[in-house]
Amino acid sequence: MNALPPGSTIGILGGGQLGRMLALAAAQLGFDVCIFTDEPDSPASRVAARTFVGSYLDVAALGDFARHVQVVTSEFENVPAQTADALIAAGVRVCPNPRALAVAQDRFDEKSFFNAHGIATPRFAAIASQADLDAAFADIGAPAILKTRRLGYDGRGQIRINSTEDARGACERLGAPGILEAFCAFEREVSIIAARGADGAIAFYDLCENEHTGGILSRTILPARVGAAVVVHAQQAARLVLRAFDYVGVLTVEFFVMRDGSLVANEMAPRVHNSGHWTIDGALTSQFEQHIRAIAGWPLGAASRTADIEMINLIGEDAAQWSALAADPNARLHLYGKRDTRAGRKMGHVTRLLRT
Amino acid sequence: MNALPPGSTIGILGGGQLGRMLALAAAQLGFDVCIFTDEPDSPASRVAARTFVGSYLDVAALGDFARHVQVVTSEFENVPAQTADALIAAGVRVCPNPRALAVAQDRFDEKSFFNAHGIATPRFAAIASQADLDAAFADIGAPAILKTRRLGYDGRGQIRINSTEDARGACERLGAPGILEAFCAFEREVSIIAARGADGAIAFYDLCENEHTGGILSRTILPARVGAAVVVHAQQAARLVLRAFDYVGVLTVEFFVMRDGSLVANEMAPRVHNSGHWTIDGALTSQFEQHIRAIAGWPLGAASRTADIEMINLIGEDAAQWSALAADPNARLHLYGKRDTRAGRKMGHVTRLLRT
Repeated sequence: MNALPPGSTIGILGGGQLGRMLALAAAQLGFDVCIFTDEPDSPASRVAARTFVGSYLDVAALGDFARHVQVVTSEFENVPAQTADALIAAGVRVCPNPRALAVAQDRFDEKSFFNAHGIATPRFAAIASQADLDAAFADIGAPAILKTRRLGYDGRGQIRINSTEDARGACERLGAPGILEAFCAFEREVSIIAARGADGAIAFYDLCENEHTGGILSRTILPARVGAAVVVHAQQAARLVLRAFDYVGVLTVEFFVMRDGSLVANEMAPRVHNSGHWTIDGALTSQFEQHIRAIAGWPLGAASRTADIEMINLIGEDAAQWSALAADPNARLHLYGKRDTRAGRKMGHVTRLLRT
Repeated sequence: MNALPPGSTIGILGGGQLGRMLALAAAQLGFDVCIFTDEPDSPASRVAARTFVGSYLDVAALGDFARHVQVVTSEFENVPAQTADALIAAGVRVCPNPRALAVAQDRFDEKSFFNAHGIATPRFAAIASQADLDAAFADIGAPAILKTRRLGYDGRGQIRINSTEDARGACERLGAPGILEAFCAFEREVSIIAARGADGAIAFYDLCENEHTGGILSRTILPARVGAAVVVHAQQAARLVLRAFDYVGVLTVEFFVMRDGSLVANEMAPRVHNSGHWTIDGALTSQFEQHIRAIAGWPLGAASRTADIEMINLIGEDAAQWSALAADPNARLHLYGKRDTRAGRKMGHVTRLLRT
């Protein structure tokens, strides 16, 4: 593909903070941005040249959007398959590959995909009925987690199963097709942010070490406290995934690091990722610019890290600390422009450069 | 004043690249941005939540704009006095102080202001007639430059006067009230970007060394090749100016450095400045974020430089090099989203971090 010249319009599905930070990065490179979202007055729309507000299933609205943009990407993985189909039918390029979106939307398909490519995961089984659950729990054993196959994020739609008592009726409580996973007694959680250009070039950011609170990312530090072999292993896995999908853009794979140093893949996100927000302040090219470069057919930028990093998410009422954070000379404050503060809602983040 | 909380709306007069970069910085801090410009489809409007397109003299439109914003700033110094008056009458705070805008708009008032505050300038005289010019040239001598008092920038509206022959009819050719200035045989040109918060705190960026081509800034490097005394002297001058205007926001003063190391003030810009664009990539807080922080009543951010810098302007057809620049891992590329390339038009810039 030819590189999109500056002045072209990048289409983004979704109006949240990831779309906002993508839009800011696109603007720096001289692109216009057009947002498609089902939410009026979204954070991304307020920094975009144009916004279409409509349903992700409205084929006519999507066609209109497609005519105004030169490429479409997404800030969330749960894009309905029909949405990508409608955009492709309207003749616009969709990056990344909708196959990657489809696989990432379903935890069973995702883990099956990992295993098929030689990437270790926790043991897992598809759960369509209570009988499936009982059989799978007998096989996998405690502790285990029952999750919805689709549409869960930030710890939602998850039930811990530590006993046959926990399992009783759990399938009904879940209320949707599920997956039972062995709970991993991991030492730490890490993620790798990787990018693949339209020319097939691949760039990796340094491995991120992540802490979650209540299923939501709360803190990312770099460098991750792991050996060099872990980094190589994570890069190998990400490379396999990128190539398998002929992927163009930024992709994230989250892993558990086990006590023996082995890596177990937890999930992938076919997009820029919260654990990569530090790259705005601490890398030569941010993950947002990197994604825009990739989908525009530009060469990837340098992904080198410039400092040791601590990134703290501002969740819900955390954002009320903005005044103190604004006064901290070591804190790089990012707020997302969300109108309402709600518990568990990502309102912003702070990056601290610890040592350069 | 109380600090404006995130979610407040920052009003910006002007839709060019400085407004665009201010808007991007404001968005990062969680602010909405509203642009007022006389130009449809402006670079800044494409990254702003809302834009009013109208004349800077349209009091009704300005009043409407004022009702939608919590503070107004400007990306250019030639804001008509009536514009600031109309905004203030509509009850909105205007930063910086319109007095600073008024003085910076008139080269004679500006140099008189510098001298009144003990800041050296080239010798100068107001020129209202050919008789004024002849008398001033007899006094100041060759080489000298005749400039319009108002509305000149990037070298426009300037006539070199090296002889009485050059002076003949020059007043008529200028076609506007003028100022004759002694030409300074300077060793180099430098600028200081300074910021003053609503609390009176002052922060300085490192001194910039600037090269101009055809009257337009072409290259800025840091550190400037000057001694420590020059830096102290420039900071002293900037501090005097900031305090004299009870200034809130970012202000730039340009100087000539003479062979003996003395500084001669050339002009001031009551705004973010082209020679400070490196701060996006090479300082802990960019000049754009710094200005937004100041006018929002937030504490100033850390202004430390993180690398040695070379900033190159992309002027006119220079921007056609975007593809090669995008492939240079050491080049941080910024393009402004201008639809038309014209000779002398600032289309973007590139920052190179030379050593960290």
